Amino acid sequence: MAGNDSLAEFLASAVQAAQEAGEIIRKGFYQTKNVEHKGQVDLVTDTDKACEDLIFNHLKKLYPTHKFIGEETTAALGATELTDEPTWIVDPLDGTTNFVHGFPFVCVSIGLTIQKVPTVGVVYNPILNELFTAIHGRGAFFNGKPIKVSSQNELIRSLLATEIGTIRDKETIDVCTNRINALVFKVRSVRMAGSCALDLCGVACGRLDASFELGFGGPWDVAGAAVIVREAGGEVFDPSGKDFDLTSQRVAASNPFLKDAFVEILRQTGC
Amino acid sequence: MAGNDSLAEFLASAVQAAQEAGEIIRKGFYQTKNVEHKGQVDLVTDTDKACEDLIFNHLKKLYPTHKFIGEETTAALGATELTDEPTWIVDPLDGTTNFVHGFPFVCVSIGLTIQKVPTVGVVYNPILNELFTAIHGRGAFFNGKPIKVSSQNELIRSLLATEIGTIRDKETIDVCTNRINALVFKVRSVRMAGSCALDLCGVACGRLDASFELGFGGPWDVAGAAVIVREAGGEVFDPSGKDFDLTSQRVAASNPFLKDAFVEILRQTGC
Repeated sequence: MAGNDSLAEFLASAVQAAQEAGEIIRKGFYQTKNVEHKGQVDLVTDTDKACEDLIFNHLKKLYPTHKFIGEETTAALGATELTDEPTWIVDPLDGTTNFVHGFPFVCVSIGLTIQKVPTVGVVYNPILNELFTAIHGRGAFFNGKPIKVSSQNELIRSLLATEIGTIRDKETIDVCTNRINALVFKVRSVRMAGSCALDLCGVACGRLDASFELGFGGPWDVAGAAVIVREAGGEVFDPSGKDFDLTSQRVAASNPFLKDAFVEILRQTGC
Repeated sequence: MAGNDSLAEFLASAVQAAQEAGEIIRKGFYQTKNVEHKGQVDLVTDTDKACEDLIFNHLKKLYPTHKFIGEETTAALGATELTDEPTWIVDPLDGTTNFVHGFPFVCVSIGLTIQKVPTVGVVYNPILNELFTAIHGRGAFFNGKPIKVSSQNELIRSLLATEIGTIRDKETIDVCTNRINALVFKVRSVRMAGSCALDLCGVACGRLDASFELGFGGPWDVAGAAVIVREAGGEVFDPSGKDFDLTSQRVAASNPFLKDAFVEILRQTGC
């Protein structure tokens, strides 16, 4: 793994790229958007593409030997395999539906994996000016201040986030709303704000106690936030309770006290 | 009805009260809260009570002949009948669960009815510094700038907000999640952010296209936002399509283009 100095430099570079992309997002936020449909409700805008170009150009110039995986590039060119090499995994605009509508939960997500381990994470909401950052082994921060997960140890007093996602076949939606139905009786309440990466960062800073999502776009939705949650003292795991797999499009997160009870409920609902 | 000058003065007074209460909310937001349970998941904090006292004292001093209806006072003293008199209807902290957890969708809601018509509305989120205001017949504003509802006329491209609420009997939750299931196929996506008043203001400023909620606390959740939505060019109505009744604990809102299609779907799901 790269030394601490390199990691600090990687983080600073990612923050700068996220802030520059954030400037583009902020400018576009209140304007009419040119929207394309990737699926029935899966959207992409000129801003997604401009931000991915900006972030990739910024980081490739600094780190020409690193690998890169991005949501829009993958959509255009097909999947890129995750290797042990230092790999930047980028969602230039998580919460595209929110962006299109002007709902203020949107973010840039940048993660760096080294030997497949999420090592540097940046999640930046340019509308609410919320910057979440972490380096493996060196803590997690919200606008520069250390954060930690909540200390809630009762599921019934927990605030849970999830998302409906963009898949609209009847079986998927039935499973999804049946799961929400079961969970509502086990937690205090459920939030769906439209950004997987921000849900995870919500767990990291304790404004949420737990979150899960299945069937999201790809590793770019979680690569940045995974290290942020873990460095805030939280757990990131597969909703079945197994180890988290960055490439599986399945994620759950909570503070350590809630994990077992949360996994138990998720399993009962077929995760 | 009071003259325009009075209404402008009423609005200014309500904004001042909301901002002073917002200061208390902001201070409490990142601290550990002293929480009481009104129901299984219906919470109240010292901040709710302190804010209601502050707002009532502020407005009663200025308008001693006016009537007052507040969430916490009603919880303590029982329901107050809505009359034709100028009546301030106050939710000192909408989104108490969010406040307790530190999830940033919380607001002060202040509405003034005159002859039972919502006439002045203030909804203020002190965490995100978002101030929504309106006077009947004089437009709606977001941080001082005029706002209008979205121009979306297709439900399938609409972003919808709703809430699970605080009732946890099986029948209510089954109806609620079955309704969400049906709606997911008819709209672009669904958001649940935890504040009825902010959902309505989201419709007013176009970041949401439609919202509905049933079984919320009382008129204080909607009295402020109802005039804001209408002055932004939106419609506020009963989810059945009938006229909105401030005291019914049922509300739906959308831009005018979506109303008929939205009501049709809500009716199909038993509203």
